[in-house]
Amino acid sequence: MREILATSPGAPGMAERFRQVRRQSEALCAPLTPEDCQIQSITETSPPKWHLAHVTWFFETFVLAHFLPHYRPVHPRFAYLFNSYYQTVGAMQPRPDRGLLSRPTLDQVYAYRCTVDEQVLELIEAAPERHGGELTRRLTLGLHHEQQHQELLLMDIKHNLSVNPMLPVYREDLPRPAGMAPPLRWLDRPGGIRELGHDGTGFAFDNETPRHRVLTQDHRLASRLVTNGEYLDFVEDRGYARPELWLADGWVLLGRLGWPHPLYWRPMDGHWRQFTLGGLRPLAMDEPVCHLSYYEADAYARWVGKRLPTEAELETRLAELEPAGNFVSSGLLHPAPGDGQWYGDLWEWTASAYAPYPGFKPLDGAMGEYNGKFMCSQMVLRGGCCASPDAHLRASYRNFFYPHDRWQFSGLRLAEDA
Amino acid sequence: MREILATSPGAPGMAERFRQVRRQSEALCAPLTPEDCQIQSITETSPPKWHLAHVTWFFETFVLAHFLPHYRPVHPRFAYLFNSYYQTVGAMQPRPDRGLLSRPTLDQVYAYRCTVDEQVLELIEAAPERHGGELTRRLTLGLHHEQQHQELLLMDIKHNLSVNPMLPVYREDLPRPAGMAPPLRWLDRPGGIRELGHDGTGFAFDNETPRHRVLTQDHRLASRLVTNGEYLDFVEDRGYARPELWLADGWVLLGRLGWPHPLYWRPMDGHWRQFTLGGLRPLAMDEPVCHLSYYEADAYARWVGKRLPTEAELETRLAELEPAGNFVSSGLLHPAPGDGQWYGDLWEWTASAYAPYPGFKPLDGAMGEYNGKFMCSQMVLRGGCCASPDAHLRASYRNFFYPHDRWQFSGLRLAEDA
Amino acid sequence: MREILATSPGAPGMAERFRQVRRQSEALCAPLTPEDCQIQSITETSPPKWHLAHVTWFFETFVLAHFLPHYRPVHPRFAYLFNSYYQTVGAMQPRPDRGLLSRPTLDQVYAYRCTVDEQVLELIEAAPERHGGELTRRLTLGLHHEQQHQELLLMDIKHNLSVNPMLPVYREDLPRPAGMAPPLRWLDRPGGIRELGHDGTGFAFDNETPRHRVLTQDHRLASRLVTNGEYLDFVEDRGYARPELWLADGWVLLGRLGWPHPLYWRPMDGHWRQFTLGGLRPLAMDEPVCHLSYYEADAYARWVGKRLPTEAELETRLAELEPAGNFVSSGLLHPAPGDGQWYGDLWEWTASAYAPYPGFKPLDGAMGEYNGKFMCSQMVLRGGCCASPDAHLRASYRNFFYPHDRWQFSGLRLAEDA
Amino acid sequence: MREILATSPGAPGMAERFRQVRRQSEALCAPLTPEDCQIQSITETSPPKWHLAHVTWFFETFVLAHFLPHYRPVHPRFAYLFNSYYQTVGAMQPRPDRGLLSRPTLDQVYAYRCTVDEQVLELIEAAPERHGGELTRRLTLGLHHEQQHQELLLMDIKHNLSVNPMLPVYREDLPRPAGMAPPLRWLDRPGGIRELGHDGTGFAFDNETPRHRVLTQDHRLASRLVTNGEYLDFVEDRGYARPELWLADGWVLLGRLGWPHPLYWRPMDGHWRQFTLGGLRPLAMDEPVCHLSYYEADAYARWVGKRLPTEAELETRLAELEPAGNFVSSGLLHPAPGDGQWYGDLWEWTASAYAPYPGFKPLDGAMGEYNGKFMCSQMVLRGGCCASPDAHLRASYRNFFYPHDRWQFSGLRLAEDA
Repeated sequence: MREILATSPGAPGMAERFRQVRRQSEALCAPLTPEDCQIQSITETSPPKWHLAHVTWFFETFVLAHFLPHYRPVHPRFAYLFNSYYQTVGAMQPRPDRGLLSRPTLDQVYAYRCTVDEQVLELIEAAPERHGGELTRRLTLGLHHEQQHQELLLMDIKHNLSVNPMLPVYREDLPRPAGMAPPLRWLDRPGGIRELGHDGTGFAFDNETPRHRVLTQDHRLASRLVTNGEYLDFVEDRGYARPELWLADGWVLLGRLGWPHPLYWRPMDGHWRQFTLGGLRPLAMDEPVCHLSYYEADAYARWVGKRLPTEAELETRLAELEPAGNFVSSGLLHPAPGDGQWYGDLWEWTASAYAPYPGFKPLDGAMGEYNGKFMCSQMVLRGGCCASPDAHLRASYRNFFYPHDRWQFSGLRLAEDA
Repeated sequence: MREILATSPGAPGMAERFRQVRRQSEALCAPLTPEDCQIQSITETSPPKWHLAHVTWFFETFVLAHFLPHYRPVHPRFAYLFNSYYQTVGAMQPRPDRGLLSRPTLDQVYAYRCTVDEQVLELIEAAPERHGGELTRRLTLGLHHEQQHQELLLMDIKHNLSVNPMLPVYREDLPRPAGMAPPLRWLDRPGGIRELGHDGTGFAFDNETPRHRVLTQDHRLASRLVTNGEYLDFVEDRGYARPELWLADGWVLLGRLGWPHPLYWRPMDGHWRQFTLGGLRPLAMDEPVCHLSYYEADAYARWVGKRLPTEAELETRLAELEPAGNFVSSGLLHPAPGDGQWYGDLWEWTASAYAPYPGFKPLDGAMGEYNGKFMCSQMVLRGGCCASPDAHLRASYRNFFYPHDRWQFSGLRLAEDA
Repeated sequence: MREILATSPGAPGMAERFRQVRRQSEALCAPLTPEDCQIQSITETSPPKWHLAHVTWFFETFVLAHFLPHYRPVHPRFAYLFNSYYQTVGAMQPRPDRGLLSRPTLDQVYAYRCTVDEQVLELIEAAPERHGGELTRRLTLGLHHEQQHQELLLMDIKHNLSVNPMLPVYREDLPRPAGMAPPLRWLDRPGGIRELGHDGTGFAFDNETPRHRVLTQDHRLASRLVTNGEYLDFVEDRGYARPELWLADGWVLLGRLGWPHPLYWRPMDGHWRQFTLGGLRPLAMDEPVCHLSYYEADAYARWVGKRLPTEAELETRLAELEPAGNFVSSGLLHPAPGDGQWYGDLWEWTASAYAPYPGFKPLDGAMGEYNGKFMCSQMVLRGGCCASPDAHLRASYRNFFYPHDRWQFSGLRLAEDA
Repeated sequence: MREILATSPGAPGMAERFRQVRRQSEALCAPLTPEDCQIQSITETSPPKWHLAHVTWFFETFVLAHFLPHYRPVHPRFAYLFNSYYQTVGAMQPRPDRGLLSRPTLDQVYAYRCTVDEQVLELIEAAPERHGGELTRRLTLGLHHEQQHQELLLMDIKHNLSVNPMLPVYREDLPRPAGMAPPLRWLDRPGGIRELGHDGTGFAFDNETPRHRVLTQDHRLASRLVTNGEYLDFVEDRGYARPELWLADGWVLLGRLGWPHPLYWRPMDGHWRQFTLGGLRPLAMDEPVCHLSYYEADAYARWVGKRLPTEAELETRLAELEPAGNFVSSGLLHPAPGDGQWYGDLWEWTASAYAPYPGFKPLDGAMGEYNGKFMCSQMVLRGGCCASPDAHLRASYRNFFYPHDRWQFSGLRLAEDA
């Protein structure tokens, strides 16, 4: 964790920040029933209850058990139930079966959270001078970890509700995004040697390090994301039926799954609708098209004769801007029409495979499993989305999904060679 | 429904019976959390919540919608969600995805039950003279249908809890079966022409009709079920590793799934334990062995040089006895050591494939899908079990499962040729 | 093998019969290329080369190795490669991978046949008085076994060729069946106690024994098989799209596989064609409909308001007739229009699950795996087909397939209750 | 095809080269039986017969049909049968079913080759001045295409033979590699701006273009490939049982497939053996370890604390050397102990995902499907192998396989940061 050394807030600041992040996870689940928190609609998602428990287990394992001698776990089986993928910590509930754990109940998971929170807060208040930087480092990692799960919570909740023929609404009170999409412009971006990766200020995950130099080519970036309206032209031009537009793997997938359009689109009575966290809505043509797989984003780009940006191209641009945008605090929980859209709105697929940076070293021990072992067969996405916690993003932040994944808030920005 | 004409209780009797059966389903779910009621541990089972709603939909569809002109369903999507397999009624939620329906919630399902119950009771009280036998017939079918689901509820609950590494206990207060297994004796049963099927007194499902004559051979029936202790000898004799003891399909299944012993057995620290609705218990050697597939029952019989009884052989014996035994009211929810065990304790696999009786006619309309369309590739079981409602069984009752099913309360009685 | 004691031809007769049966298998493969003999188009079929070797292994294992002290197998790995399912003999090549065995080549398999044949013939000529009945019994079983595989050869060859988009023709010189289907009549068949099973004269497989009494009901049997023309009415009446006509398992299968018509039918340019061993032909409306699964046969019967016959009903009828009909020697290799059609033309699905007769005892040792272990989840078919060797059939002969199988020469005769 | 303009040999040179390449494919299949040429042991491989036909179809489609007006295909169905993945050309036999095509036979495929060859040679001799560069370009691409399939032929033949329990030998006369592995040294390689991609001299595939600049870091490359002996240390250190050494996807795969060691290793009687094209041999400890998946190569590198090289690092090195090494003409058909091993021996896994170079443009039309559409989820390998045709390789050559593939001749060279 050397490279990702966080600024070290004193105990009072850390306690408050801890309380705030922990409360936010619970707030996100407040509109849900215990049943909504139980189900796992596809193997890629997790039940909301499981998220709430897993992030707690993370603090229990990597903070409490690390700092408290003779620490006794809240429940001896929770390590098995709520370990996600830390093989070096021990065996775990198989991922596809997370939705089968009716116990502990949601109430019991909340109680688990309380118990762990009390002990963590006690540790924070009692011991900062004793544990010094390591406690702060681990807490900071734990909080960023929980914020990542807050994003996932909203994505997984959306999918859980979407598979129900009654199309339940997560929150009836969500405002609908307003505004229009401005004409698309092209930003000229000169190539050259650029610095990539975390610059050492503030927190970063290990996969953003080390900072290193890369050579980019002259290129152009689109001034905003592709809209529903633009993507609809592709759909109506038989985009999903023309093999020459697709990567070979994507075409095979299309043949097997029969995708005719983006995940949450629904043709109804001659009109297009879209399932959102605010329920079923008419498909707004000026909103960015969302919930695309990499294959769909790539096929669209080929159709218009453009390409997706690389992660170096996007990071270089993001580094010029403040990390502000349509994040979770906007209250929309949906991408909005607009210009720029560099941060927030939607995670943007890049043309870059998720790989270690030159000189990358994962964290020591089990925490080294956090990022590095996924560096194969996935693609990088950049910029955060409408479900990202504010202040969670930064220019060097690397998200990653498989090319076929599309339940996450993912969108598409075009690029082209200069 | 000609053949299954029920005795016609007056309105007061029917109302009371209706209330009582409906209450019982809810009582069975009382020890469960909303989460327990949500999950579907394997595709063969259904979530308890779904059972509660489905039996209600059955009354709504086959009673309310039939008798009430302009009847408006409680919710327009419930027919889709809670139709089990009545293709002629309309499309339905795919069976493996019943566990993904977080809405309606358990509370909403209870409210659904209330609404339907009130209308059914109103119908019973207002209209007996108007609807005559048909109302009684449909109500009677609906109540027997709900009783079947009460059995399934207990089986499915047991499985739902068993897949949780914490092994939750359904009811802590269940007494453990006491007593010993008497020595096994052989009852001589002379062959000859026998009458099989429902004799017309009281209710029966269509698959028990028409009553007809069959020719049985001289044979002997074991005086009780095979016990855990006896079955353990088979396990320890490498029964699960010797292909010559198994049907070919069973051996293939064993190779794929690696079953080493009956479903709920667990070897722990050199001792055998068994998961029950009362939690994990030492394997009681005098209790009947339970949760066997047909393949396991058949292999055991081959190992001891015997065979399974036919359904004619068992029905002939059951017809000589009162339908009394270790049913749900015994409060054990588990088979008990003892003699006879003809009714109750465990459903007994027969060597008979589930097939229509000569001259069988299914009920008219959608209710004809109740039984007839399953008459292929399944085996008949007889006698009821410790989860069967009292007064639900009769000698002619035919239950059926696939040869590989073993989550139901199934056991094994030996037979041999005379 | 007590019950299936064959008449005991002297050595000269047996040698000639052995030569003749063995030659016939090779004659059936004569029109094929080595490549045709190699492939396994679905897991249910076997490569022709494998059939040729397997039946040879059967003689090697159950005759040569049994009678010749210190017998040394032709090749030490052939037992692994060509054992079909005799678990007690040893491990074997997994069934779905039989088509991956490019070695031994077809030529080497023919050489294997020669070597074994020579030794068997030597044994026959040298030793009849020494081995007595047992040699005759085992040879007889081996020859009937090989004849069963001759039928399978033609079915598997047909399927192998059918999956090739070039639709190769097995034999260009096959005459097309001529004639018309007479009007369908109903034969009244009184019920009563009947004798079923092999009567002890001549050879029989163990599954035809013991002879026993059954009680049949009054019924009627159709005077001929259902024709293509009649079945086409069902197809055109949306038979494959109406769930109420299908067994539940069949409907699920239909949903998964999308069968729109019988296996070898092909709609082309507004006309129906049918793939046959003589190549693609117009669908002849008077020919019996063939290559039906049980589900299709059953659905058709339900559509016309009839049912399939039981095996007792069919055997009773077959026992009244000489076992003559459109067998392989007719040279058609295809069912033909006609009356009766009791023997030959097509195996007729019965409504009877394949189960042991009362008192059934399989043969001792590995040969006991021949039939008994398949007595689950399959249905009985009766009467032989156009690919059956002449003199192979008898009234008590029981064939069996899974309800979903349809690459065999299977057809359908209607029955109804009197 | 602008960027990949080949030098333009006159007609005589081209005709000779054409004959030579075409003959070589047939020579590779000469030791095989028609049965060996028929089978497809896994879906990733193709039957040798299919390879022989497919490369012929390539010339037919992209040369004959392009240049000959009114060209009539040799057979109207061959386009369907032998199109590999050119969606824009038309529909095709599904890849997993290539092994089911018993017709055309091997002899017919050879006849097909003759017919096409004659016409191509006629075209070459008659028309060079008329068709100019385009004919040369297309012929050159077709010949390089066939050479790629020559490599695949040997890999697929090896796998086809390996699944046979008799372990047939491709060629008995293959010499065994001799020599010893020298101690491993580290070559210091300074980073900086480097040119990557084809330099325009001679032929190249489109995926090697355009030539462009990249920035590499200081690093070190191992002086030779990892040996069997070195890899065995990893196996014996429980390398396949320690999740911390594996990429997450690899660990899941290991759990599902249970790989305990490289593909063709076989533990027998306490010794390690290895299946080769020359049959089963003792595992030679000084030979390079081969037939590794990316997951295995990566896990080994992690275990020794090193990493895999990037494709830029390898290409930079290869560009300094003549493309000479243990290619197919060495006659070993197996990697050999030695030093350097930069070209030949084994394709070396790189840490680089297969992606388009900046500014990449696929060829126009169907030939554009050759490479570009596979640029997702695969990894680049470099340097050629012992099955590569001589003169087929060059520094910029990019091969690519999925991370789980391991039937190809793939090995592993270590790298580390400076």
